[in-house]
Amino acid sequence: MWSKRLANLWDGENVASMFKTISLLGIGLIGSSIARDVRSRRLADRIVISTRSEKTLKRAEELGLGDVYTTDLAEAVRDADLVIVSVPVGVSGAVAEAIKDSLKPGAILTDVGSTKSSVIAQMLPHVPEGVHFIPGHPLAGTEHSGPDAGFEGLFEGRWCLFTPLPETDADALEKLKAFWAALGSKTDEMDAAHHDKVLAIVSHVPHIIAYNIVGTAADLETVTESEVIKYSASGFRDFTRLAASDPTMWRDVCLHNKDAILEMLARFSEDLAYLQKAIRWGDGEKLFDLFTHTRAVRRSIIEAGQDTAEPDFGRAHTASKAGE
Amino acid sequence: MWSKRLANLWDGENVASMFKTISLLGIGLIGSSIARDVRSRRLADRIVISTRSEKTLKRAEELGLGDVYTTDLAEAVRDADLVIVSVPVGVSGAVAEAIKDSLKPGAILTDVGSTKSSVIAQMLPHVPEGVHFIPGHPLAGTEHSGPDAGFEGLFEGRWCLFTPLPETDADALEKLKAFWAALGSKTDEMDAAHHDKVLAIVSHVPHIIAYNIVGTAADLETVTESEVIKYSASGFRDFTRLAASDPTMWRDVCLHNKDAILEMLARFSEDLAYLQKAIRWGDGEKLFDLFTHTRAVRRSIIEAGQDTAEPDFGRAHTASKAGE
Repeated sequence: MWSKRLANLWDGENVASMFKTISLLGIGLIGSSIARDVRSRRLADRIVISTRSEKTLKRAEELGLGDVYTTDLAEAVRDADLVIVSVPVGVSGAVAEAIKDSLKPGAILTDVGSTKSSVIAQMLPHVPEGVHFIPGHPLAGTEHSGPDAGFEGLFEGRWCLFTPLPETDADALEKLKAFWAALGSKTDEMDAAHHDKVLAIVSHVPHIIAYNIVGTAADLETVTESEVIKYSASGFRDFTRLAASDPTMWRDVCLHNKDAILEMLARFSEDLAYLQKAIRWGDGEKLFDLFTHTRAVRRSIIEAGQDTAEPDFGRAHTASKAGE
Repeated sequence: MWSKRLANLWDGENVASMFKTISLLGIGLIGSSIARDVRSRRLADRIVISTRSEKTLKRAEELGLGDVYTTDLAEAVRDADLVIVSVPVGVSGAVAEAIKDSLKPGAILTDVGSTKSSVIAQMLPHVPEGVHFIPGHPLAGTEHSGPDAGFEGLFEGRWCLFTPLPETDADALEKLKAFWAALGSKTDEMDAAHHDKVLAIVSHVPHIIAYNIVGTAADLETVTESEVIKYSASGFRDFTRLAASDPTMWRDVCLHNKDAILEMLARFSEDLAYLQKAIRWGDGEKLFDLFTHTRAVRRSIIEAGQDTAEPDFGRAHTASKAGE
């Protein structure tokens, strides 16, 4: 298995790299973080970078993220043993189609998209015989985007989920898991439909709610936008972080995980109507019960090591003085 | 005016303290943070602490937060030049009634509650002639509560809002503002009804939304609670921080700023319905427009010094490894 090899890698021994050539299609926050880690952890001999925009590609080159740079997707994957597609989910199909005739037999083709059923539906029809297509999703990121936003260690301690297909080759899956483990990720498997429901509630709906409340606040007549901004530290500012995420990425997530998102939004609205009624009728007991229950969820998240126990996310308290 | 005096205080010169006796009624996160700052910045000769629970009072004494400790509210305020009420807003009226016959003529009586119209309605009828009642609200706090949660510098760089009454004495207001400035706060004035609308959108509704989505996630049948917790770092965990705030405080806020909260919740739901429709009909352009607009709000908040520009609130990325 890979565990001994990984131990060697961690110890910095001069072992052969995991892949000869890794091709990164898309070089935003995720792609560029992978590139940085692959380089520093010596996981490949050669990194090929391809992206649609000449400007972004040039920036990737300035940052020295790879060895070869091209806007030609087909060219980019020709020698790759591992191809990682890190693009807005809406273009997954077009990318798969563009590379289908250049993929090497035995290559592993994976992605990092936040929706899995749609990505599979888009890409699978284009995957040639002999290429191992394994949909993946690292649960990592920040509100920033683009090649400058990536950094070494982004995936450290984070989950990477795989939604293998019935025909997925077990060895290829092991190899891909070992790759993500080498980036520091914990790995897990589930089926695509379940993934999409889980992500709808832990990621997609939270982002949508955040975008929505920031929009509501910006549109009020009775409270000015400058008041919203000045006094945002009393709760609101937390939402603005998620609402500053990449608009293209999130537009595509909404369009490509529609059913699960609408299902979870309906649940959210139902619960909000109940809470709203408790407020209207002054039912303090109901409010207290709900507000107590949710405190326990926070505790579990901290105990599971999924967030810091520091008050206020450990925000620097002096941050607030910058604007004085 | 106070500015020279403040400069002296900041320089650590041995000037007379601002108040002879400050009484803190309620010694949770806010009260205990005030106590710590008053002590270290030498803003009073004597700090009297009073709270309902014997256990909490004992803890305050163990922490050495004051000079005198009593559960007798009337006794606590007898010699006070400044009385600060830091209790859940629902008990403001009862506290005012309990102290009304012991307040010293010329004393300043203020509070820190998140709702102002209700606090005024509850307290004002009990305020005796000659006592300066000035409703206040420091926009500061964390998701933690109780006397152990307070810390020095909590108010540094944060806003403290006052909602003076038509009869409020200008000198008393200046003196109270100088006190908060000495705690590091920036101060502002507005009328109580407007305060309650502003806070409904920047603080109350964000907390309610956070409590609500955490409740929704915990109640799903298709996604387990352990999945929600494991994969929470993809957005959800941000909401759990607000949803871990003090249940008693937030129950009272909901009950005592009902009208403004219901108004803002209605706006939020209306906007969410619009967004939901855009998702259902696959209207990518509408989604992209909204998601772009909100990014600008985040930028303004950072430019105004109201949040850190660090990705992910500057969270320690290693926090995620604690649970491995």
